[in-house]
Amino acid sequence: MHVIAYGAHASDQPLEPIRITRRAPGADDVQIAIDYCGICHSDLHQVRSEWEGTRFPCVPGHEIVGRVTAVGEHVKGFKAGDLVGVGCIVDSCKHCADCDAGLENYCNGMIGTYNFATPDEPGWTLGGYSQQIVVHARYVLRVRHPQAQLAAVAPLLCAGITTYSPLRHWGAGPGKKVGVVGIGGLGHMGIKLAHAMGAHVVAFTTSESKREAALALGADEVVVSRDANAMAAHRLSFDFILNTVAAPHELDAFLVLLKRDGTLGLVGAPATAHPSPNVFNLIMKRRAIAGSMIGGIAETQEMLDFCAEHGIVADIELIRADQINESYERMLKGDVKYRFVIDNATLA
Amino acid sequence: MHVIAYGAHASDQPLEPIRITRRAPGADDVQIAIDYCGICHSDLHQVRSEWEGTRFPCVPGHEIVGRVTAVGEHVKGFKAGDLVGVGCIVDSCKHCADCDAGLENYCNGMIGTYNFATPDEPGWTLGGYSQQIVVHARYVLRVRHPQAQLAAVAPLLCAGITTYSPLRHWGAGPGKKVGVVGIGGLGHMGIKLAHAMGAHVVAFTTSESKREAALALGADEVVVSRDANAMAAHRLSFDFILNTVAAPHELDAFLVLLKRDGTLGLVGAPATAHPSPNVFNLIMKRRAIAGSMIGGIAETQEMLDFCAEHGIVADIELIRADQINESYERMLKGDVKYRFVIDNATLA
Ligand SMILES: [Zn+2]
Ligand SMILES: [Zn+2]
Ligand SMILES: [Zn+2]
Ligand SMILES: [Zn+2]
Repeated sequence: MHVIAYGAHASDQPLEPIRITRRAPGADDVQIAIDYCGICHSDLHQVRSEWEGTRFPCVPGHEIVGRVTAVGEHVKGFKAGDLVGVGCIVDSCKHCADCDAGLENYCNGMIGTYNFATPDEPGWTLGGYSQQIVVHARYVLRVRHPQAQLAAVAPLLCAGITTYSPLRHWGAGPGKKVGVVGIGGLGHMGIKLAHAMGAHVVAFTTSESKREAALALGADEVVVSRDANAMAAHRLSFDFILNTVAAPHELDAFLVLLKRDGTLGLVGAPATAHPSPNVFNLIMKRRAIAGSMIGGIAETQEMLDFCAEHGIVADIELIRADQINESYERMLKGDVKYRFVIDNATLA
Repeated sequence: MHVIAYGAHASDQPLEPIRITRRAPGADDVQIAIDYCGICHSDLHQVRSEWEGTRFPCVPGHEIVGRVTAVGEHVKGFKAGDLVGVGCIVDSCKHCADCDAGLENYCNGMIGTYNFATPDEPGWTLGGYSQQIVVHARYVLRVRHPQAQLAAVAPLLCAGITTYSPLRHWGAGPGKKVGVVGIGGLGHMGIKLAHAMGAHVVAFTTSESKREAALALGADEVVVSRDANAMAAHRLSFDFILNTVAAPHELDAFLVLLKRDGTLGLVGAPATAHPSPNVFNLIMKRRAIAGSMIGGIAETQEMLDFCAEHGIVADIELIRADQINESYERMLKGDVKYRFVIDNATLA
């Protein structure tokens, strides 16, 4: 089936309308009409070949929400008309220890929603900047939010789970003091989620101008990280700090804020290395620097249900498909509060 | 009370016999005649002012074993003649969360065995290169090894607990694959301890010549870390890797050997930074780089009892006090298997 998408033919070309092919739904597949797709920084990195191995044409997009239009004969639990989501994962090996643990995101055979090898045309996966997608039912999420919120649910599929998973894994909750570094697409979700989990949330930003916004998102305190005195007042006090900033920066400034056994969790990988962290800061209080990548399918469903229950969605700016290139430029300048979402009806 | 010690008057001076004063035992104190004291790399760093703030005269030594000669009136559990040990800690605040958790090693008020402020003369602590020491009973360990092994027990008080604590904390035991990087004073204890805990132990060394020695210490496998093929064969297979190497080196080579959720535990702090680790290696498998510093008093006792039960001591070379300076030079060249221990009877 041919559908309209938005993609790029080369790393130095803008995205433009293209026609792509979607497979007919197999016995285990769910066919989805995409209503909205969020724009993630990864989309830009991939389409501009800032990461290795981009294949063209490249159709990005892994914050997908829409309605089921057909299901294969083996599919249970989904039927035409259901509101569903698809995130960063559309397939995995299904039999390794990671898959068995519901952590398909760490499976060596994970197939990402775009730019991963697939038997389908054209040989690699094509993402959610398109009218339709066909995905194995294991990787399809149920959306329980009201339909009116659907556009703002889209970013939960990447920005939401990318922050929810480490917050849960490292125990954010009542009685815990949690930091969130960076107030962008990821960070604004991190603040909302950590707050809803019941943690005492401190938002870190380089810009005093973001203070009110961070408080409105649910932060209990806001610290401007350039203010050495304000930083010093929080030394040795955090259980966990979620660091969403991918730009290279000093990790030591945050490490020293952790209690004994505290963890600095990184969810962004810098294009060039951070300054090397001071090993003394790890040794002196048995601290850790760790990483986390999106989340598994079961946990993504848990996150969506948690968000539906707590009335959490992303703060978004809805755009037309023909604004995608412009939105990339604005995203690079941090000029978005906090996520662009494409209205896929405008692809037609 | 005046006792003979071995110490340095300045960072560029050799160690030599000096007279120091020990306090009379207070109500909570244990007075100890020191039989043996191990030589730790930290001793050398401190006495040569390679770390900040060395106060002179400096008497190093925090791998202390000996016999109780007197106890204060409040002391229970120790009496004259008991075999005891003192490690890196001789005091702490006794009322913080760390002290309450038995983790005096992470207490902000921890008083190290040498070079920490004390009301005693001369105003800073003086270590175990001396005939005698007086220590609050809370920080005195019971030695249950046979007396004939006493000299080889000494290094357990720093090298032993420094490796035992992270191995326990990160779950070394049956069914776990554990790496130990570096086969020196710390690493040789790490191999013995991880083996006794029941883990599958892989020793990493830069030198093929250490293979047989590492196997003899209890390693199940030995990998020469310069051999890229040998390293690649262990990718994604370790639960925990204990890294005892303080010299700056690429951490990524070991990070990629960890399974999902694996930890690279550092117990040595480099004088100049390691190359900055690749954040992708953390994110892709939710791995962590962590640090660990010695261990608490309760855990040190647990370690000593574990070693007594399993017949574990350090491999040592016993030296006279007048060989200390020479032994430092040999230690710098790695020319010791695996720990120098001073026969404190030779101080007189
Ligand atoms: Zn994303
Ligand atoms: Zn798998
Ligand atoms: Zn030591
Ligand atoms: Zn304390």
